[in-house]
Amino acid sequence: MDTQKELRLRCWIDIDGERFFGPGRAQLLHHIDKEGSISKAAKAMGMSYKKAWSMVDDMNQKGQKPYVNLHKGGNKGGGAELTETGKMVLEFFQKLMVELNSTVKKKEKEFLDLI
Amino acid sequence: MDTQKELRLRCWIDIDGERFFGPGRAQLLHHIDKEGSISKAAKAMGMSYKKAWSMVDDMNQKGQKPYVNLHKGGNKGGGAELTETGKMVLEFFQKLMVELNSTVKKKEKEFLDLI
Repeated sequence: MDTQKELRLRCWIDIDGERFFGPGRAQLLHHIDKEGSISKAAKAMGMSYKKAWSMVDDMNQKGQKPYVNLHKGGNKGGGAELTETGKMVLEFFQKLMVELNSTVKKKEKEFLDLI
Repeated sequence: MDTQKELRLRCWIDIDGERFFGPGRAQLLHHIDKEGSISKAAKAMGMSYKKAWSMVDDMNQKGQKPYVNLHKGGNKGGGAELTETGKMVLEFFQKLMVELNSTVKKKEKEFLDLI
């Protein structure tokens, strides 16, 4: 029987022992950046608006500066865009993941052949 | 208020989409190697013997070769030791974690200062 083996990796940031920022929030920031609205970003991720909004609110509250600017007006609170901090956090996380994944990729075959 | 931020990393192996080997099993192999018995290894990890035994059994079943040799006799099944495969898997995992953690450590301060 053919089994499928995969070497997996996850990286995230805890604040005071609680998960604060990881792949899910990075993806949400990415979609907000692309779509310019929380509701469209939520839709793109198959997530409720309420859940996406509360993730944004948590990042804006706990980050040392807000990550997302919310524009008032229109249905569901108008548009949204990443702040400079939000952009830098997203970019840093994406670059770190690329670097970590490249280490994993280099080792993957040799390791999985042992397993 | 002083908040404590931490960049965290986890790496594991899936077989057919299910978690097969990660930090917990690596730690168990490490303790079996050190203690020479599943019951002592379980104790060192604060884990029940039954749980540790079933983890070993799963590794021995699903790995392409057994990871742990079990010696019969005595209470709770006698001694246990890593096979060559078990040693190689453990060593590879530990080395990979060292390498990934060194990438994380290099980036950690810069990233956490942004967060």
